[in-house]
Amino acid sequence: VDHETGIATMKFKSPPVNSLSLDFLTEFCISLEKLENDRACRGVVFTSNVPKIFSSGLDITEMYGKSTEHYAEFWRAVQEMWLRVYGSNMVTIAAINGSSPAGGCLVALSCDYRIMVENPKFSIGLNEAQLGIVAPFWFKDTFVNVVGHRVAERSLQLGSLHPAPEAHKIGLVDELVPEENLQERAAAVMAQWLALPDHARQLTKSMMRRAVLDRLVAHREEDIQNFTTFISKESIQKSLRMYMEMLKKKKH
Amino acid sequence: VDHETGIATMKFKSPPVNSLSLDFLTEFCISLEKLENDRACRGVVFTSNVPKIFSSGLDITEMYGKSTEHYAEFWRAVQEMWLRVYGSNMVTIAAINGSSPAGGCLVALSCDYRIMVENPKFSIGLNEAQLGIVAPFWFKDTFVNVVGHRVAERSLQLGSLHPAPEAHKIGLVDELVPEENLQERAAAVMAQWLALPDHARQLTKSMMRRAVLDRLVAHREEDIQNFTTFISKESIQKSLRMYMEMLKKKKH
Amino acid sequence: VDHETGIATMKFKSPPVNSLSLDFLTEFCISLEKLENDRACRGVVFTSNVPKIFSSGLDITEMYGKSTEHYAEFWRAVQEMWLRVYGSNMVTIAAINGSSPAGGCLVALSCDYRIMVENPKFSIGLNEAQLGIVAPFWFKDTFVNVVGHRVAERSLQLGSLHPAPEAHKIGLVDELVPEENLQERAAAVMAQWLALPDHARQLTKSMMRRAVLDRLVAHREEDIQNFTTFISKESIQKSLRMYMEMLKKKKH
Repeated sequence: VDHETGIATMKFKSPPVNSLSLDFLTEFCISLEKLENDRACRGVVFTSNVPKIFSSGLDITEMYGKSTEHYAEFWRAVQEMWLRVYGSNMVTIAAINGSSPAGGCLVALSCDYRIMVENPKFSIGLNEAQLGIVAPFWFKDTFVNVVGHRVAERSLQLGSLHPAPEAHKIGLVDELVPEENLQERAAAVMAQWLALPDHARQLTKSMMRRAVLDRLVAHREEDIQNFTTFISKESIQKSLRMYMEMLKKKKH
Repeated sequence: VDHETGIATMKFKSPPVNSLSLDFLTEFCISLEKLENDRACRGVVFTSNVPKIFSSGLDITEMYGKSTEHYAEFWRAVQEMWLRVYGSNMVTIAAINGSSPAGGCLVALSCDYRIMVENPKFSIGLNEAQLGIVAPFWFKDTFVNVVGHRVAERSLQLGSLHPAPEAHKIGLVDELVPEENLQERAAAVMAQWLALPDHARQLTKSMMRRAVLDRLVAHREEDIQNFTTFISKESIQKSLRMYMEMLKKKKH
Repeated sequence: VDHETGIATMKFKSPPVNSLSLDFLTEFCISLEKLENDRACRGVVFTSNVPKIFSSGLDITEMYGKSTEHYAEFWRAVQEMWLRVYGSNMVTIAAINGSSPAGGCLVALSCDYRIMVENPKFSIGLNEAQLGIVAPFWFKDTFVNVVGHRVAERSLQLGSLHPAPEAHKIGLVDELVPEENLQERAAAVMAQWLALPDHARQLTKSMMRRAVLDRLVAHREEDIQNFTTFISKESIQKSLRMYMEMLKKKKH
């Protein structure tokens, strides 16, 4: 937290690809709660400390070959992360300095504003369908609120990863900047949002997002149950194993 | 069905203008059900075998001077067609090689993807208001899911028929191609959609469309009742008669 | 009302800035009701008779230093105005010949079509957050129906006043024209909308807007209660006083 400006920066640093593991999510939520309760902090910029990747999304190893209890605990942590970011009283800006598939894209979608490095090699999207799995309804709701129903329907069905220029064109990110200008631009946008009175801005944000937040809160246990049942299926475990093997091969 | 690719092509062939008559709808639903149950078939392309027209929409002669029972039977068939196309587990692509007003537009809107011949003489839209009638709520819901609320509100109130370039601009169709490339392009898009695992794609599609589908299912009988009452009105019958006479004069 | 064309023009004339005072709103609603009940009148164009301003929105003096009863009466009049314009059976066109913040923007948003003078010095938007207050849910619903969720979320949180070219780009107004062509263009657009049969157009409009209208009707008293409680708060009264003082200083 910069106490002069009231702006915090959270740099994701969980090499090699900033996977959202259970540990990562737990630490993330604790840090965010601290900032939320710190009256000196009015805004937070999320960015990555790992080159070329913002966040690779949910850690697949948390979803493969574990117990039902583990899946439930993991999923609750994913929900918690989203509830906190999407419902944050702070101004939240994603400074996307690398690729951001699946859960990484969700983090960005949950912010108030998204700035992405204009490198077309960096891509972003909810590509769950490519892995044979389905984005949960609240990923979908968040996505629809940003890009609208039609773009979301097509992108989710195709599991599209959109290169930065395309992501900007469909409204998934709000602007593109050269990498060297990213943090400076994030600070400028933050200043613009912080120029508004906090109370009015927070009530307005809540008015826009409450319906979608309430929907998960009302169905949270059911959603955990759905996830654990789905992910425990043999066919899904097989899909995940194949995907992990493909990733390993890619490395070598 | 091409059993090698798993892609079926349904060519509408009900000259002169591919009206959606009761017979046409009945046959259409039977064919679609067969494909739906054929595990070798994963996608279907809808196109027209009649020059210059994709489908002229609901057959007005089914709505004029008939019994209440007939209107009810006809309307149930229209609902059935939409429920099957919009809720299809297959990948559905509209290869729109001609004009497509009203119910013809609905068929296209219910697909996963719309490719239209770039000829500006071909137009598409829900032009019911021009005929003095009102598109039912589920036509409207389907339209809003594709083009958004504002575009739908304006287009429905004006009963607009959008020439192909305009239809593309407002997002009513996804792309335009020269007529000679239409089928080739439909096959390429289909291949892209079929590259995804069926199960994940189907669940995603259902998640996006279920709310709108469920709404008609919940109000189906009421919707039939509304239609038969509305269409039986003297003023509406008069509007339809005038419209048919205008069409006849146009021919001569 | 021009009895030949069936088109009425309502020119706002409440200098210096066409504030929506209780008196203004009361007279506005009476005039609109008369037109609504006049079968010879099928459409109405709203425009301003005051240079450079369409309407400056709700009259702040009605919200400052008055009794709870006064706040309630004022708010009911604001609701009534919106219910009548957004739910009008007539074709409604906003011919926006000046700036149009807050409540002035709401009037424009509630019309069927918005034409704005292309002068970039004229701006429009729901800038309530700038004043430390929050646009009520039905302002928000109306806005979302025009520009979609994402644009509305960002614009409302920032309390943005969009210069005419930007307002056009985000879909907040439908077209821009040179000032000298405004009334002529409004008449041409009106003629296009009036070419449709009234009954079908009205039912279509109602189908598109009913959900949002019903929502306020169902929560009307609660919304009045919320407003009076909110506006009576010391902190909000202080914000308004500071805003009025700033406006006064600007004048001198």
